[in-house]
Amino acid sequence: LWAWGAWAGFKVWGWDEDAAARQRALGQGLPVAAGLADLAAQVPAPRRLLLSLPAGEATAAVLRALQPALQAGDLIIDAANARYQDSQDHAAQLAERGVAFVDAGVSGGVFGAQAGYCIMAGGGAPAFAKARPLLHACAAPGGLLHVGGAGEGHRVKTVHNGIEYGLMQAYAEGFELLQRSGGGALDLAAIARLWGQGAVVRSWLLELAGAELAQDPGLDRYEGRVGENSTGRWAAELAQAHGVAVPALQAALEARARSRQAPSFGSKLLSGLRARFGGHSEAA
Amino acid sequence: LWAWGAWAGFKVWGWDEDAAARQRALGQGLPVAAGLADLAAQVPAPRRLLLSLPAGEATAAVLRALQPALQAGDLIIDAANARYQDSQDHAAQLAERGVAFVDAGVSGGVFGAQAGYCIMAGGGAPAFAKARPLLHACAAPGGLLHVGGAGEGHRVKTVHNGIEYGLMQAYAEGFELLQRSGGGALDLAAIARLWGQGAVVRSWLLELAGAELAQDPGLDRYEGRVGENSTGRWAAELAQAHGVAVPALQAALEARARSRQAPSFGSKLLSGLRARFGGHSEAA
Repeated sequence: LWAWGAWAGFKVWGWDEDAAARQRALGQGLPVAAGLADLAAQVPAPRRLLLSLPAGEATAAVLRALQPALQAGDLIIDAANARYQDSQDHAAQLAERGVAFVDAGVSGGVFGAQAGYCIMAGGGAPAFAKARPLLHACAAPGGLLHVGGAGEGHRVKTVHNGIEYGLMQAYAEGFELLQRSGGGALDLAAIARLWGQGAVVRSWLLELAGAELAQDPGLDRYEGRVGENSTGRWAAELAQAHGVAVPALQAALEARARSRQAPSFGSKLLSGLRARFGGHSEAA
Repeated sequence: LWAWGAWAGFKVWGWDEDAAARQRALGQGLPVAAGLADLAAQVPAPRRLLLSLPAGEATAAVLRALQPALQAGDLIIDAANARYQDSQDHAAQLAERGVAFVDAGVSGGVFGAQAGYCIMAGGGAPAFAKARPLLHACAAPGGLLHVGGAGEGHRVKTVHNGIEYGLMQAYAEGFELLQRSGGGALDLAAIARLWGQGAVVRSWLLELAGAELAQDPGLDRYEGRVGENSTGRWAAELAQAHGVAVPALQAALEARARSRQAPSFGSKLLSGLRARFGGHSEAA
């Protein structure tokens, strides 16, 4: 559930298939429908429906359940990660009923809820125009762009996540190298903080790494078995389909697979970063 | 030549083996010696000598040439990149003559001259205490740290550069993937700018990539044959010596080697980044 009753000038209804989540929402004053069909009946047309669901069948099933209640003029925004081809299909299917569809790749992790998200939106110009006010309200200043037609938002987000995998792997290797080659004598949190002041490697992920290392220098909170959502693999598939070599991404994917067999200090840092930006829990 | 006559409260003399560089310095009012021996004779003791020379024999040769004129109480700072083992050797050799040595890993590229550098300093506590005022004057706010004993500054800088190789490769792959899979239709500069606003992949290197793509969307200015200084290979050697897997770094090194045979859009972006932060020229 993304939203809270009346929010940023929007009147918001929520729904989640999990009854406990619906109860929490009700407790926070968010009107909650009993089911998807009720939700569509309850919300006056034209509606803007924002989905944030696991990619693939979970999203497709909700779209199928919603379709009978949808009317021409409605808008659906898929704000989760998705294969961009699925989003192209959804846009085409909904267009037949006069329903607009925007695929919104959303980055910023759990920090985005406060600071505003970075949103890569795909869809036709009329669909984007309908979605724009709501997406603008969710975005960081300057953090909304209509990147292209249907599917392009999710394609750009897939590539974003592929880059993210490589960046995280580069930091994981570096901090493990400092830790192992220095016999544990270096103050890694202090070095991460130092690098934040003018070094070429400075970044938001480095800030998160520094916060993690300051809180738990040995990263003992993590088992170091690193999971993944599917976006890294989708990026690798996209690269293969277009003949683009992505060795750093491949290295990152393989390192995560290997971490499930043999965790390391570096893979613990990957877990720490995933916990910080994504709320993914990989505790020991 | 790093310095300009009287600077930040320091009186500065310069020397460069290139006569044209010495002439330029004289033209800017910087006292310049005729040779290294003259320089040492000209500067009153105790002296702080800051070297920024190619690693290996070039640095060692200047240290040998300086030694006869050095006195106990003098300080030498090696502010270039160097193998950390060489810096440990230099520290030990100079200590026999009572000369302090600090190995200062310096990041920030050509921007550092204005914004201040990020400096990772290695050496004994008395040596660092002598070097501190000068290094502090060169550093960005918060950008100076005494990371450990002799050699540790250059070791940490080596790992920093290893991370930098991986980060650059991740961005190069991602932007090439956007360019190739999108048939050139995406506005890559706008996407780089967007990602700077709240996305997980935001960083200083991404800002540079965005500036490069805004100025030259096809990156046609570059041949895409990407060079390297030695620091990436030193980082890989360090990893091998300590049994640390660094697949993203290896991927970056191999991609640069491959770029010299078969340039790509991604390798042109690497050249663009190297030009922006390091002043390295790899124009077409």
